Amino acid sequence: MQIEIQITPQRIAETISPLLAGVGALAEFSGIVRAEEAGRAIAALEYEAYSPMAEQVMREIIAEIGSRHPCLCVRVTHRIGIVPVGETAIQLLVTARHRVEAFAMLTEFMDRLKQDVPIWKRRALSGDEFDALKKS
Amino acid sequence: MQIEIQITPQRIAETISPLLAGVGALAEFSGIVRAEEAGRAIAALEYEAYSPMAEQVMREIIAEIGSRHPCLCVRVTHRIGIVPVGETAIQLLVTARHRVEAFAMLTEFMDRLKQDVPIWKRRALSGDEFDALKKS
Repeated sequence: MQIEIQITPQRIAETISPLLAGVGALAEFSGIVRAEEAGRAIAALEYEAYSPMAEQVMREIIAEIGSRHPCLCVRVTHRIGIVPVGETAIQLLVTARHRVEAFAMLTEFMDRLKQDVPIWKRRALSGDEFDALKKS
Repeated sequence: MQIEIQITPQRIAETISPLLAGVGALAEFSGIVRAEEAGRAIAALEYEAYSPMAEQVMREIIAEIGSRHPCLCVRVTHRIGIVPVGETAIQLLVTARHRVEAFAMLTEFMDRLKQDVPIWKRRALSGDEFDALKKS
């Protein structure tokens, strides 16, 4: 495991400017397509969504978690279609007053997303299948 | 609570390029100085560290958590000195194969940091104190 530690008097560049006043915690998660799926080497995943319902269900999940762990802003970006290995399929950004709420939203939302939201992996593409697709 | 959801076939820009092959999860936390401390309006916090020991203790904490939740890369950046409201005091970046390990590292490390690492808030500065400091 690589470990990098820096203790510095220099300003730390925000990856994203805090979106609202009062933000004390900014937590972010990116889910990235890995080169294997169920033990098999892959080149890409294809995601499919029933988008209107997916968005509605995500809003309900966020509201429910937020009623227990109040956050300031939750931003979800889910990519659909073919997502090559190494690229981000889902990105979640949460701001809150304190880190505890932000972490609760991050972890609980990701669990619920997998269970309840109509976005699914339609198929895993091998290198050959992905190459054929790029040529077509 | 603001909620933003996007379901998109477009590529999602990585905030940070995955640092090592095999990364399936990238989790990040920024702790930002808020405009109040213990109910009092403030303009900045001053952090102080015993830096060599702080780095050593952080490495031990990360190794211990990593033995239970293997991660690929952990990057900690802690700012010291005066940190104005709205700026980042601590930033933690974790990559792992799966999100569960990344979230465990993120949350456990932040708890342990507050308890065990010799970095502390030396003082909270009011607007007047901060202005005086900037002029001096």
